[in-house]
Amino acid sequence: MIKMAVIGFGNIGSGLVQLVTENAEVIEKDLGCKLEIKYIVDIRDFKGHPLESKIVKDFNVVLEDPEVSIVAEMIGGSHPAFDFSLAALKAGKSVVTSNKEVVANFGEVLLKAAKENKVAYLFEAAVGGAIPIIRPMRESLSSDVINEINGILNGTTNFILTKMLSDGMSFDDALQLSRDLGYAEANPSADVDGIDSCRKIAILSALAYGKVFSCDKISTQGIRNISRRDAEDAAKMSCAIKLIAHTEKMSDGKILIDVAPKFTEIDSPLYSVSDVFNGILISAKASGDLMFYGRGAGKIPTAGAVLADIAEIVKHISIGQIPPVLWKRAEDAELFDSKLQMTRFYCRVKGDKTPEGVSIISSKDGETSFVTAVTNEYETEKMLENFVCVSKIRFM
Amino acid sequence: MIKMAVIGFGNIGSGLVQLVTENAEVIEKDLGCKLEIKYIVDIRDFKGHPLESKIVKDFNVVLEDPEVSIVAEMIGGSHPAFDFSLAALKAGKSVVTSNKEVVANFGEVLLKAAKENKVAYLFEAAVGGAIPIIRPMRESLSSDVINEINGILNGTTNFILTKMLSDGMSFDDALQLSRDLGYAEANPSADVDGIDSCRKIAILSALAYGKVFSCDKISTQGIRNISRRDAEDAAKMSCAIKLIAHTEKMSDGKILIDVAPKFTEIDSPLYSVSDVFNGILISAKASGDLMFYGRGAGKIPTAGAVLADIAEIVKHISIGQIPPVLWKRAEDAELFDSKLQMTRFYCRVKGDKTPEGVSIISSKDGETSFVTAVTNEYETEKMLENFVCVSKIRFM
Repeated sequence: MIKMAVIGFGNIGSGLVQLVTENAEVIEKDLGCKLEIKYIVDIRDFKGHPLESKIVKDFNVVLEDPEVSIVAEMIGGSHPAFDFSLAALKAGKSVVTSNKEVVANFGEVLLKAAKENKVAYLFEAAVGGAIPIIRPMRESLSSDVINEINGILNGTTNFILTKMLSDGMSFDDALQLSRDLGYAEANPSADVDGIDSCRKIAILSALAYGKVFSCDKISTQGIRNISRRDAEDAAKMSCAIKLIAHTEKMSDGKILIDVAPKFTEIDSPLYSVSDVFNGILISAKASGDLMFYGRGAGKIPTAGAVLADIAEIVKHISIGQIPPVLWKRAEDAELFDSKLQMTRFYCRVKGDKTPEGVSIISSKDGETSFVTAVTNEYETEKMLENFVCVSKIRFM
Repeated sequence: MIKMAVIGFGNIGSGLVQLVTENAEVIEKDLGCKLEIKYIVDIRDFKGHPLESKIVKDFNVVLEDPEVSIVAEMIGGSHPAFDFSLAALKAGKSVVTSNKEVVANFGEVLLKAAKENKVAYLFEAAVGGAIPIIRPMRESLSSDVINEINGILNGTTNFILTKMLSDGMSFDDALQLSRDLGYAEANPSADVDGIDSCRKIAILSALAYGKVFSCDKISTQGIRNISRRDAEDAAKMSCAIKLIAHTEKMSDGKILIDVAPKFTEIDSPLYSVSDVFNGILISAKASGDLMFYGRGAGKIPTAGAVLADIAEIVKHISIGQIPPVLWKRAEDAELFDSKLQMTRFYCRVKGDKTPEGVSIISSKDGETSFVTAVTNEYETEKMLENFVCVSKIRFM
C-alpha cells in the first residue's frame, strides 16, 4: 500500500482524485499494490463533501506523516506551491506536479533537492497535458542530440486561431467562444499573451539543453494582434497561423528561444494540429523528426499524466531510484537574440506600395500584404522604415 | 565503463556502431560512464574493415565473456536471433533488439527469461523505428486504460499509397519507385502484404492488453489490390487510403486485431501521415487521443531507438532493475472476429447498378463505386452477392 496526499482540490486535483478512484483496479494491477489518497489539502471548506474526512487545511499534517511517500502538488501559481514542494522533498517525499510556473521558475532548485533527498520531482503534466513528452525526452532521447523543438503548447490559443482560420471568426469572437466552452480563463492573459507557452518551452528547452532561461528574458509574443486578414492571407498561401514555441541550439552554442504566432506551412506536421490539441515537433540528430500529439489540457487528461508520474515513482520505490534530471539557470549571455533568426516574414502595410524584392499576397481595403525573402527581423524592420506596418508575422 | 556486443553487422547493426561512435561524448555524459562495443558478431568476412579486430564469428565468445553486460541483437529473422537472445538472457546479459519478428513470435518467452535472470529485454526499435512508443506505453500509459490503437506502422506501404494518391501513380510504378529509393526490399512481400504491420500491431496489442496473438490468426490484408481508381474515389471523399493496423478491446472482452487498407478521413490525425513516416494513434480512457509520429524506418533513426534502450539499461544497472513487462500467449477464442466490426465500406462493382441504400461516389468505365451505411463485412458480402465486386475497402 502506497499512501499519498493531493495538495489543492481544484480542477486538476479533483480530476486526480477521481481517476485514482475510478482506475483503482488497473492501478493496483500495474503497481503491484494499492494506492491510497490519505489526505487532500485545501484551505477552503468542503463541509458535507463525500471525501470530507480526508480533507485537511494544514499542509504540516502531510509533512509530518511518515506514511505519506508521495505529494501531488495541484495548487498552481508560484507560492505556496514552490514552498510546499520544497518542504515535501526535504521531508523525503517524492513530489509530482502539473504546475509549469513552478517548474519553469524553480525547477533547478526542486530537482536538486529531490536528488539530495533521494526522492523524485516529476512534472509530466506540466507540458502538453496528457501527451507523454517529458518522459520520452528524459529517457528515449537522452542519448540523442536535440537540434530543435517547435511546439503548439497552448490549447486555448490554438482553438482561437483555428476558429479564426477555418470559420472566419474575429479574435474577440473566438476568445468569447473559448470562454463559453470553458477553455479560456476569466483572465486569459497567460494564454493569449503567450506566457503559458513560454513557461512550457522554457521547461522543454531545459530538458533538451540542461539550462533554463528566465521567462522574462525569452522573446514572447501572443496572438492578440492577429487579425482575420492575416488568417485569410495565410490560407491563401496554404499556411495556418499557429502560436509556436520554439527552442534551438545555434551553431555558436547559444540557445534561441521564442514564442510567437508564425505562418506554418501545410507540409509541417504542426499544420494539422487544430482546436484544443497540442503538438510537439522534435528534431533530433539520430531520430530525425518526431511529433507528439494529444490533449494539452483538461481535468482528466492532465490528471492521467500526473498518475503516470505517480506510477513511475511507486515502481521505483521498491527497486531503487529514478535517474535524476538536473538543469542549471542559464546566463543571459547564453541566449541567442531571436531577432537574428533567419526566416521569411509576412508583412502588411498601408497603401499599395511595397519594398522591393518581396512577393505580394493581397492588396485590398487600402492595405497590401507580402512575404519577404529569408532575412532577419532587424533587416525587416529596416526594410519597413518608410512604410506604415500593420502586421508582421514570421514563418516557422 | 559498460561493454556490449552487437550481433549482426548489417544495416541497423552498422548504424548502431556508427551512432555509438559518433555520439560517444553525449552518451558518456548521459550515462555517467563510457559505452564500449567490445564485439561485433557476424558470420561474414570483414577483412580489412577498420573494426576488424572487434569482429568475431562465434557468438559463444560473447556468451562466455563476463565483461559483456548488454547484447544488441540486430540479426533479423526468427533464427538464430531468438536462440542467441535466449542464451544471452540466461547468461545474465540484457538484450535489446529491433527484431519485430522475434518479439511478436517469442516475446513472452524472452520477457519471462529476462525477468527470471533479473536482466532486461527491450525492443523500442521493433515498432515505429525512431518513434518512442514502447516506452510511453510501458511507462506513461501503464495506469491508464487503452481502448484502441490505430497505426500506420509500415513506411514502405505508406510511401506507395501516398504516391498513388497524390501523384496518381499505379501500384506497380509506386512500388518500383520505392525500390529505387531503397525503401522496399527486393522481396517486398513482408511490407506490401501487411505481414510487417501485423507483427508490429501484435506487439502493441500485447503491451496494451497483456496477451499476444499469433500473426497467422490475425486478419491481415495488404495493399496489392489497391488501384488508382480506389485512390481517386478516396480523394473525392476527402479521404486517403492508409494501411491501418488496428487493435481494440471489445465490449465482450475479446480483442479485435486487423491489418487492412482503410479509407481514412481528413479529420483523423493519421490522414496527414505521409510518405515513409509512421503514425500511431492511441485512444486511452484518461489521456484521450494521443498520436506519436516520426520516421518508422532507416538505419540511424532505428539505431537511435536501440540506443535509448541501451541507455535505459545502463542507468538501471547501477540503481536496480527495470520494471518487467510480461505478456501471455492468447487463446484463439479470445480474438474477436474482425468481420463483425461495424464500419462503412467503400465498394466498386461492375455495371451501373448498385445495392439499395448506398451513396454513389462515381460511375465510369463500366464500374460504379459507392459507400454503404455502417454495417459489418458479412452483411456487406450478402449485399454484394448478385454483383461483380471489383473492390471492397473498409473505413477506419
